[in-house]
Amino acid sequence: MLERMSSTATGLTWPLIEEARERIAGKVNVTPVLTSSTLDGLSGARLHFKCENFQKGGAFKARGATNAVFSLSESQARRGVATHSSGNHGAALARAAALRGIRAYVVMPDNTAQAKRAAVARYGAEITWCAPTQAARESTVRQVLAATGATLIHPYDDLLVMAGQATAAVELLNAVPDLEVLLCPVGGGGLIAGSAVAARSLKPAIRVIGVEPAGADDAARSRKAGRIVPVENPNTIADGLRATVGERPLAEIRRFVEDIITVTDESIVRAMRQLWDVMKIVVEPSGAVPYAALLDAPPALRGRRIGIIVSGGNLDLDHLPWNARPGADAPRNE
Amino acid sequence: MLERMSSTATGLTWPLIEEARERIAGKVNVTPVLTSSTLDGLSGARLHFKCENFQKGGAFKARGATNAVFSLSESQARRGVATHSSGNHGAALARAAALRGIRAYVVMPDNTAQAKRAAVARYGAEITWCAPTQAARESTVRQVLAATGATLIHPYDDLLVMAGQATAAVELLNAVPDLEVLLCPVGGGGLIAGSAVAARSLKPAIRVIGVEPAGADDAARSRKAGRIVPVENPNTIADGLRATVGERPLAEIRRFVEDIITVTDESIVRAMRQLWDVMKIVVEPSGAVPYAALLDAPPALRGRRIGIIVSGGNLDLDHLPWNARPGADAPRNE
Repeated sequence: MLERMSSTATGLTWPLIEEARERIAGKVNVTPVLTSSTLDGLSGARLHFKCENFQKGGAFKARGATNAVFSLSESQARRGVATHSSGNHGAALARAAALRGIRAYVVMPDNTAQAKRAAVARYGAEITWCAPTQAARESTVRQVLAATGATLIHPYDDLLVMAGQATAAVELLNAVPDLEVLLCPVGGGGLIAGSAVAARSLKPAIRVIGVEPAGADDAARSRKAGRIVPVENPNTIADGLRATVGERPLAEIRRFVEDIITVTDESIVRAMRQLWDVMKIVVEPSGAVPYAALLDAPPALRGRRIGIIVSGGNLDLDHLPWNARPGADAPRNE
Repeated sequence: MLERMSSTATGLTWPLIEEARERIAGKVNVTPVLTSSTLDGLSGARLHFKCENFQKGGAFKARGATNAVFSLSESQARRGVATHSSGNHGAALARAAALRGIRAYVVMPDNTAQAKRAAVARYGAEITWCAPTQAARESTVRQVLAATGATLIHPYDDLLVMAGQATAAVELLNAVPDLEVLLCPVGGGGLIAGSAVAARSLKPAIRVIGVEPAGADDAARSRKAGRIVPVENPNTIADGLRATVGERPLAEIRRFVEDIITVTDESIVRAMRQLWDVMKIVVEPSGAVPYAALLDAPPALRGRRIGIIVSGGNLDLDHLPWNARPGADAPRNE
């Protein structure tokens, strides 16, 4: 606990982010930044989309996991890495471990969808199944750690993971130096915390704003309260953003994030559909969350140069949220 | 008819393509070239996807229409342009005309889907409805031409349109100079003809291969027969490729295209789904046709550096072809 508190007190620093960039270079994609004059017109702003849906594994998670795995000492690495995850982090960790040639142990709830099992299994990770509860996940991962001596790589409450996620914002600001605002989705907080530290280090005047589903607004509440305020039963289509914000991410959010806006699931689906229809990119609900904040062309952001982190594109194409709502408007790219 | 034959005899030349590039620069997008190590692994080749789904209007058609419209003399331009189209060309022509500030007359079958009507109407084109037959389309467009004095811009049997479409291949070869093979979908033939002339002009040793739906294989038949052999009732999900190959495109295909491969609709849907799942891009059935030729990792293309023109991404997201076939495999990007 002492170690944990002192890490939090130190927090994420620019040198950690610079080291992460060097460490993961060539191991993850430098993703493209796309623009759309149609969406600029609709939002009344100038938008720059950092497309982490084009990242290895289809999500930004490759960055943090790769940084953490390649930061291990040789003796740590020999014992492998472990995590519990039903989503993108498990697959990203399995991939990073395979790249380094070490073992990965991933604890997954036994109700995990087949596509997500396959994404972890294809990298040769050792999967341990558990009951689909937070308690079962944590106790199972403790057993795995005790049995193997592996290093736990937390999906977001980890400075090396946060430093890795921060590199997306660094690339975005290098590509578009004159951004005025950065919008970022908020789940466990690793991405927004890393992005905020990176962006404010490179450009102290930039405004970093988090966007969170209204049905999982723990980070917005926690930021206001100054301590972690979990949401009991998060309820949102944005499955990547249901986690409760971590202690280390919250510390950076409180220092560097100007505001956390919440958006409804209806807006998220509308935003996602617009990104698919106009930009021709496959974005998962979580990845559409920041753009959802711009759907009604908020006057405070009118005319601004805005960076948007599109966090990922992994979802089941057989079950799209608009199948229930035909007749949605479909503007084309201009 | 004499004029038509002499134009065909001259054919598409490199200077026409260079002029097109200069003419349309800044008026259409320079689209990105994407790669995927997952799809390289699956296909056994090294693939470079030229993403015309990210083009203005969501398809390569913007290139040819813009070149044709901006090639008009002032006096021609004053009388406007006309075409008949139920698809991307009509919208592309409407947009190009709006850019130049002139009138566009688009004849559309009265069963055209709402999204496609809207794509034409939003640029202020004047729409004339007709019965959904080829004869009605042609007679209606003749009436429009007679009434207005507008210039007919054919969707593909036009050297200036072909020269515009050719610019996608020029950009691709500039970005990836060491390509060995270029794969291109074949509909009316404007894209493949332009691509072939461009690619072989820049790189005489490159192999240009067309890919066509088995249910609309008029170009493959016509190439073998040495004359246009229409398919009576084209039947394919690739709605952009149902047109019969034009006279001018066929002349270039016969000179510069090594082969035209055909693919089944089942392969097209499987290819499309793989592009969405792995590359996270929205591709319409026609745009997935060239990649469909690589699904079974054909030995003749093993290990080659292959350019693929992804022609467009316009389709109705409420009606996706795999809704009828759940359980398709879903590899992720690596």
